[in-house]
Amino acid sequence: MKDAAETIFSTFRDIRPEGESLKNDLSAEIHSLVRIGITDRDRILLLASSTEDGYCCAIAVKKYLHHYWTNLKVEIKQVQGLQVTDAELFRTRGVIEFVGHILKEIDEYGASNIILNPTGGYKALVPYTVLVGMLKGVKCDYIFEQSTKFLELPPLPVEFSRSQFEAHKSLFEKIERETAIPQAEWERNISYDEREKLKSLVEHIDGQVTLSAIGILFLDELRSPSVLVPFLSQKAIKDCFENIKQLDDCDPFRFLSRVAASKDTFEQKEHINVGNGLRWLKPGRTTDRYLVSVEGWRLLVWRAIREDQEGANYASKITVNPETERRSYSPFMRMDFVD
Amino acid sequence: MKDAAETIFSTFRDIRPEGESLKNDLSAEIHSLVRIGITDRDRILLLASSTEDGYCCAIAVKKYLHHYWTNLKVEIKQVQGLQVTDAELFRTRGVIEFVGHILKEIDEYGASNIILNPTGGYKALVPYTVLVGMLKGVKCDYIFEQSTKFLELPPLPVEFSRSQFEAHKSLFEKIERETAIPQAEWERNISYDEREKLKSLVEHIDGQVTLSAIGILFLDELRSPSVLVPFLSQKAIKDCFENIKQLDDCDPFRFLSRVAASKDTFEQKEHINVGNGLRWLKPGRTTDRYLVSVEGWRLLVWRAIREDQEGANYASKITVNPETERRSYSPFMRMDFVD
Repeated sequence: MKDAAETIFSTFRDIRPEGESLKNDLSAEIHSLVRIGITDRDRILLLASSTEDGYCCAIAVKKYLHHYWTNLKVEIKQVQGLQVTDAELFRTRGVIEFVGHILKEIDEYGASNIILNPTGGYKALVPYTVLVGMLKGVKCDYIFEQSTKFLELPPLPVEFSRSQFEAHKSLFEKIERETAIPQAEWERNISYDEREKLKSLVEHIDGQVTLSAIGILFLDELRSPSVLVPFLSQKAIKDCFENIKQLDDCDPFRFLSRVAASKDTFEQKEHINVGNGLRWLKPGRTTDRYLVSVEGWRLLVWRAIREDQEGANYASKITVNPETERRSYSPFMRMDFVD
Repeated sequence: MKDAAETIFSTFRDIRPEGESLKNDLSAEIHSLVRIGITDRDRILLLASSTEDGYCCAIAVKKYLHHYWTNLKVEIKQVQGLQVTDAELFRTRGVIEFVGHILKEIDEYGASNIILNPTGGYKALVPYTVLVGMLKGVKCDYIFEQSTKFLELPPLPVEFSRSQFEAHKSLFEKIERETAIPQAEWERNISYDEREKLKSLVEHIDGQVTLSAIGILFLDELRSPSVLVPFLSQKAIKDCFENIKQLDDCDPFRFLSRVAASKDTFEQKEHINVGNGLRWLKPGRTTDRYLVSVEGWRLLVWRAIREDQEGANYASKITVNPETERRSYSPFMRMDFVD
């Protein structure tokens, strides 16, 4: 294997990564990386197919990159089941492992530090790469076939319908834990109507139901949400619309969207940690304060008050026991509305 | 052109669309169509690139399809700007025309009657085909490179964040109308934070801002929504949670989701058209009734009542003037909640 890779490498080692050579003499992988603009401080992860050819090429590309960018970190991961002769193996193993590798990186490095590059590799993987990018908020750069510019697909304002999927979370977790469940169990748990809607999330093989790559992606997004979604309690709806919104300098919805979208902002705005899972958030110099908790992918907003009305000791004055009092706050409605 | 196409056609005319030939001797376009299972009653639309080669091949494929499926309807549309040497032309014209053609078909035939097949054609188009499929609810079937089975990407439970985009609808419509607006106008209207989020929806060229293919897709989805999204008035929230939900045989949320998701179901369930844009819906044999209106992509639910409480003449008893009374019903909250 090593010899084969060395032989491949020797055929293009001396072709410098610049000018016309990029397009005409070097591989799409190298061409696209150069156009995206790699530097010695980057880390490249090459996801190779499970074939010998694919792995050899990955080694040769790695050698080449090291040759011209001495300090670049380059890693190769061979993706089990990733090949193009057996469609079922591709679907039930290859794509699943492929998506799993990417999710692991996103989890470790953060969506904003990653660029997905589907330029090389199988065309059949492009849809999955795009999906991961969209749902996890990672941008996708790829090179235009005979062009010298790359196309950028920035993260789109797209989300998946979590509520619908979440109703069956425990069943999906069972499938994940046990790898597969009998078809009959699937049909017993999911009504005919819903089966059609959840079709993309599972694979049916030999009377068994397993998670599809998309199912795994969705389950991951439920557990490690890339953004939180704000939900307002019945009291918070009144608080926001009848009180806070009247103030010229306060936009409760904008503020809550911002903290929900970014962990860093959320932490910066935390003012008082009440201790029972509840926290008071303070936007800045304005008088509005928000009592919130995080529940999975949801940011629950229990109250929205004004310090100028409640006084500086508002946190000891307004208390909520989320265990026992939840009923008088629910239902928490998603913060998406029209006047 | 015709001669060239005839020459290409003659090279594979006599190869029957079956067995090993599909994979080894016929084009990916033909192979995939056969695997998807075309019949004489289908209609095939071949979207050809703007190059002569692409157009010739499309003609040859059309001839072949007619040769073996005499009554099949086959049309070719040449997509302006679709080529692979000029990336900017591809982005600002090719993809836009490509997406436009598909949207037109969906509008005419309905999402459930269409299959997108990105097997042939440029790899760079795959992300856009997948996006259209996802957002408009059209399935995508494509063939696995060296396999004999096609992969199916069913419509996913994914949606785009309409509310965020809608705030700027009039600006996007202006760009559409005038083809482009100055960069300065864009920056004056869209705050720095938002520009990052809306990045995928526009293209920046020579100090001008135009709609991207994704922008066009989103604008289309705002105007011709493939599904409606239910929003509950403050009164309807109380109605549903404090009254209707208590009944064993009523699930107001499931019912409203169903009518929002399908025009046919909506029409079937319409019981009384009040005339001022409002309609009473009746699920079936149950006692619950819903007063709704459609506003763009939103299904506004004004009231939810019980006929057994209000009497058979409920429609004349409970009246709403949507023009003058809206304030006492708003805000309408999206029907997505947690108890």
